[in-house]
Amino acid sequence: MTRAVTIALDAMGGDHGPSVVVPAAAQILRRHSQVKLILVGDEQVLKQHLAQQRLETSERLQIHHASQVVGMDELPSHALRNKKDSSMRVAINLVKEGVADACVSAGNTGALMATARFVLKTLPGVDRPAITALVPTRNGFARLLDLGANVDCSADHLLQFAVMGAVLAEAIDGKPNPRVGLLNIGEEEIKGNDQIKQAARLLSESNLNYIGYVEGDGIFKGVADVIVCDGLVGNVALKTMEGVGTVIAEFMREEFSRNLFTKLAGLAALPVLRALQKRIDSRGYNGGSLLGLRGIVVKSHGSADAYSYSRAIDVAILEVERAVPTRIDQHLADMLVKEQSL
Amino acid sequence: MTRAVTIALDAMGGDHGPSVVVPAAAQILRRHSQVKLILVGDEQVLKQHLAQQRLETSERLQIHHASQVVGMDELPSHALRNKKDSSMRVAINLVKEGVADACVSAGNTGALMATARFVLKTLPGVDRPAITALVPTRNGFARLLDLGANVDCSADHLLQFAVMGAVLAEAIDGKPNPRVGLLNIGEEEIKGNDQIKQAARLLSESNLNYIGYVEGDGIFKGVADVIVCDGLVGNVALKTMEGVGTVIAEFMREEFSRNLFTKLAGLAALPVLRALQKRIDSRGYNGGSLLGLRGIVVKSHGSADAYSYSRAIDVAILEVERAVPTRIDQHLADMLVKEQSL
Repeated sequence: MTRAVTIALDAMGGDHGPSVVVPAAAQILRRHSQVKLILVGDEQVLKQHLAQQRLETSERLQIHHASQVVGMDELPSHALRNKKDSSMRVAINLVKEGVADACVSAGNTGALMATARFVLKTLPGVDRPAITALVPTRNGFARLLDLGANVDCSADHLLQFAVMGAVLAEAIDGKPNPRVGLLNIGEEEIKGNDQIKQAARLLSESNLNYIGYVEGDGIFKGVADVIVCDGLVGNVALKTMEGVGTVIAEFMREEFSRNLFTKLAGLAALPVLRALQKRIDSRGYNGGSLLGLRGIVVKSHGSADAYSYSRAIDVAILEVERAVPTRIDQHLADMLVKEQSL
Repeated sequence: MTRAVTIALDAMGGDHGPSVVVPAAAQILRRHSQVKLILVGDEQVLKQHLAQQRLETSERLQIHHASQVVGMDELPSHALRNKKDSSMRVAINLVKEGVADACVSAGNTGALMATARFVLKTLPGVDRPAITALVPTRNGFARLLDLGANVDCSADHLLQFAVMGAVLAEAIDGKPNPRVGLLNIGEEEIKGNDQIKQAARLLSESNLNYIGYVEGDGIFKGVADVIVCDGLVGNVALKTMEGVGTVIAEFMREEFSRNLFTKLAGLAALPVLRALQKRIDSRGYNGGSLLGLRGIVVKSHGSADAYSYSRAIDVAILEVERAVPTRIDQHLADMLVKEQSL
């Protein structure tokens, strides 16, 4: 029997806090027999939520009290200084102390990144941790990073992101020798800024399977398994995707509810529309990995529902089972050795 | 009677050249009684296309011979040096000489921008011309710029883009006192790079109706009429939108053609799906304006069909009628006077 994987959950974080995290925990305990969960947050509040869900604490579902909560709009620096007993900080501490193998939070991304970096520290060879998530493509999905942790990135940073993204694509997404692309503008001669051009050179010389520049619409064509960009570009691209998806869904609802005929058409098309929605539903893709840390931290979307949050926990479990930080560390060390021996 | 508006068309540019430009010209001549068109390109080829369309040259439809064509992948610098008799260059020359009031091209964006800038020059106070286009939102449309002409932008450049975008929103989109937003990342404290933060200060102090930062998904919420960003971010955002739209359309086709039942559902839903497509059809939004030049140049999508190309000509006609360059010049001069009097 393998050792149980233990995940600490920041039960107070996100737009909905324990009313989402506790039901998500229940889903995980049903899906995975080998997983232990630690709910971190206000003990009284959590006990009430457990009671509502007819759950009890057990060997597999524990409560770890934390008296504070990091606000969704709180400045990371403020949270770092003043929220030392927050559910977020304590959940990360449990990873640091080896009590938990990973933690999941739907809280404030900036505070989560700052706290995780402060508590866990980065791996050797990693200047800046990055955030990555999967996006659906025509024929599967691709991994995009950085999604907002770093706004100004050097070519070296982009190379490190590429290495970390490739490790995740191989270890988690099941893509051996993943194709790595650099997100860029399409025009000739004005192809991107200096950092992107230099990163292209570094990637060409690396042992990664670098396939060249990818444009915004190329993300969805499935031409690359890992798409690398700075956090500003990545964040805008990700949120643009979400925005387009939302507006198209709204337009569809409006068009199908225009009159009796369109309503009947909508009824006839309902199973198809549901299948379509499932395919582009961002809930199935929830779980942004904070990469480059000496520990596993997964960010859930702040507005995630219980199913969506449980998908973020799934990501954390997989990263523990596949020992992602160790693999990243090894890959970066290999590159460093290779560089020094040149 | 008002003087006829004359538009020069780069008839050889784009993926389809005259087989799209000539039918588009025919559509325009039917729609606008006061517009004159000059088809610029190989005279023999153009005459054949006119014959195929049962068109003849006339006072309102002329041919201006040009012996060369700029390739879609040709480097802008190469086009500038070696293609002095290209359909693109000659069409821009006609604007410079006052023979035409504006020109439209579906050719290579980089070459078009470089040639237009070289031939027409920028307006006083404009360091770099920008490209802008409309994107559909929940409740209408918004104007995004820059879309790829400039990858590294200072705060001053972003301010100039904002002024030019606001002029277009007011003059062309019919939006008095347009709301101007800066495209940015959503996280607190790490809100964007230094250029964006400084541009936010400049915009706050300007006489523009600046509403603050807009995130990627905010573009579609209709919170701003003009959304300003550097060309790398804008290009990625625009192409991401197109990519998401395409992949959703593909998924829909697949889901509706899965079996007999889904095909029947698709048939029932067809009028609704067509209405939906029309709403998000990028063809209706074709026509990227090159702003900040001493003349009007409109870029059509390279793969535009005749209807879509005719929409780009419509944009050029409107810009002539509303004297866009003069308005931009005036607005920038006003700002300069205000700055100096402070």
